[in-house]
Amino acid sequence: MSVPTLKQVPVNEYSRIIGLGAFRPDVIVTNDDVCQWIDSSDEWIRQRTGIITRHRAGADVSVIDMAEGAAREALQQAGIEASQLGAVIVSTVTHPYATPSAAAALADRIGATPAPAFDISAACAGYCYGIAQGDALVRSGTATYVLVVGAEKLSDVIDNRERTISFLLGDGAGAVVIGPSDTPGIGPSVWGSDGSKWDAIGMTRSILDVRDLSMAARQSDEPGDFALLEEAQELYPTLRQDGQTVFRWAVWEMAKMAQQALEAAGVKAEDLVAFIPHQANMRIIDEMVKKLNLPESVTVARDIADAGNTSAASIPLATHRLLKENPELSGGLALQIGFGAGLVFGAQVIVLP
Amino acid sequence: MSVPTLKQVPVNEYSRIIGLGAFRPDVIVTNDDVCQWIDSSDEWIRQRTGIITRHRAGADVSVIDMAEGAAREALQQAGIEASQLGAVIVSTVTHPYATPSAAAALADRIGATPAPAFDISAACAGYCYGIAQGDALVRSGTATYVLVVGAEKLSDVIDNRERTISFLLGDGAGAVVIGPSDTPGIGPSVWGSDGSKWDAIGMTRSILDVRDLSMAARQSDEPGDFALLEEAQELYPTLRQDGQTVFRWAVWEMAKMAQQALEAAGVKAEDLVAFIPHQANMRIIDEMVKKLNLPESVTVARDIADAGNTSAASIPLATHRLLKENPELSGGLALQIGFGAGLVFGAQVIVLP
Repeated sequence: MSVPTLKQVPVNEYSRIIGLGAFRPDVIVTNDDVCQWIDSSDEWIRQRTGIITRHRAGADVSVIDMAEGAAREALQQAGIEASQLGAVIVSTVTHPYATPSAAAALADRIGATPAPAFDISAACAGYCYGIAQGDALVRSGTATYVLVVGAEKLSDVIDNRERTISFLLGDGAGAVVIGPSDTPGIGPSVWGSDGSKWDAIGMTRSILDVRDLSMAARQSDEPGDFALLEEAQELYPTLRQDGQTVFRWAVWEMAKMAQQALEAAGVKAEDLVAFIPHQANMRIIDEMVKKLNLPESVTVARDIADAGNTSAASIPLATHRLLKENPELSGGLALQIGFGAGLVFGAQVIVLP
Repeated sequence: MSVPTLKQVPVNEYSRIIGLGAFRPDVIVTNDDVCQWIDSSDEWIRQRTGIITRHRAGADVSVIDMAEGAAREALQQAGIEASQLGAVIVSTVTHPYATPSAAAALADRIGATPAPAFDISAACAGYCYGIAQGDALVRSGTATYVLVVGAEKLSDVIDNRERTISFLLGDGAGAVVIGPSDTPGIGPSVWGSDGSKWDAIGMTRSILDVRDLSMAARQSDEPGDFALLEEAQELYPTLRQDGQTVFRWAVWEMAKMAQQALEAAGVKAEDLVAFIPHQANMRIIDEMVKKLNLPESVTVARDIADAGNTSAASIPLATHRLLKENPELSGGLALQIGFGAGLVFGAQVIVLP
């Protein structure tokens, strides 16, 4: 059969980050607050995690609200209108509906409609996964401008009495706009997964357990079966992790991936002005800095001390603070790496906006 | 400051679909089965929706299981090893964990580790959104081969007594491998969203309602507070839609988007061998065929009659069947369009594998 040749869109040679925004919710949770629920102390938490406070969102502030705050600032800094966006990507694991996406609501709120909009699930690597996709969409010509948002309300999926992860977590959102560039602004993405460690970080149970109880109670001969209903008290799925497995993997494997991102971009540690790892734990950050032999001249993002671990939001939040405190770093090279549940990871060298 | 130039990866000029796979679970649900729960009839359901049966998965078959079945066939047809994959994308709204992703587990099962792996949330447009991203990842050189899977176990998020959408839905998975090509194999993506209709299709309630009940029961003065616990019976979120809004939008707006995808690819309806719309409802398919003035020579996918609406899985499942029944269409041009909750949509003209 004779098949006509499909037209293709014009491509962009390079992409870069042209705007950055952040949203930090206003409830400050101290280590003393946390110690109401777990047997620990401010000193122990500071020593083991480097966390002093976390920002959390009140009941009236949603993932979409936080994403909107960060997105508006990123658009303003980029100097483009929302209507120019060719895609809206929200990286989140805490949007509380299976469907529709947070991104579709966000696109509507900021005036990006009819831009394509979708959420991605890549946990604490979600921002770097979003950068990999945004870069590909821009360079392939599929979109001219892409909004990438990391937004998490982790306080919705924690159990304050749980000791492996809940006390580390904060809420927030960070956003960037990626656009075409005359020079390379985003290095090759070194990204991947190791699903053999799928159980290392995750939920206490499947949402289907909630359904099964609900069904069983509904079908029971005794209306409002008490024994079945009683289980509902503990049913809501919350986060947990195998901290030792994650710590070892992060320190050993992620330093290698960060090194690979440098090599893929053809730069050396001395060329960097900043290192912006996922803000999981200050001890992981310190170990990675050692393993990468970063010179003193490289500013290391340590936003976790005030912000806690905000999953997909942590890197853009940390970048935002870094540039606020060190505006002279704008235009320099930063190495960023996200890693988390999956397990998944993503790293790039980027030109700071 | 002097900033070294970031190296970039070599790009691929074109991409195409090189392999296709399908998984249809083995529980067949007839209209008579459905009419145990809702006051309707086989005849009414056939007339209004074109659905005769749907395939559904048993309790022991998960989203990841179905994705694996489809992925293995797609890899085999593509003639590549899973280890050659540069990304694994699973489009789903029914993976029952907030995190980790279904994709990370799938990548591990099929031997794609350490490929990057993530889920996307774009409902019934999810497969076409995945094609847009896979095409961009391949053409930008970010990945050489990308696995795109649409996998849904919608039977997990329905209420059999609900009349707006539950009886339409089926389970299943379809997968494709996208790779580099010497000629254009995927036309420009015409994709978008309209979040002003965010409420038109969605869940009956937020998962946070489950949490709030759980919390309230836990904190109640009466241990195992009966009134609070009783509410748990109805708490599990299930799908619902405003059928009229969705029907009108699909028929009027989606025919225009399908036409735009033809124009963007520089082809005419006469150039197509197949039209493969999302299998939402046979009446929507019929109306779109009329509005697009498709000639008789274009084979229209009508997999919905046996499969029901399988959301992100419906287009690859329908494509798989179309090529099985009409192998001579391989290499011809097909117009595909997905649309659903968000509201979101995505359309492309593709060269059939």
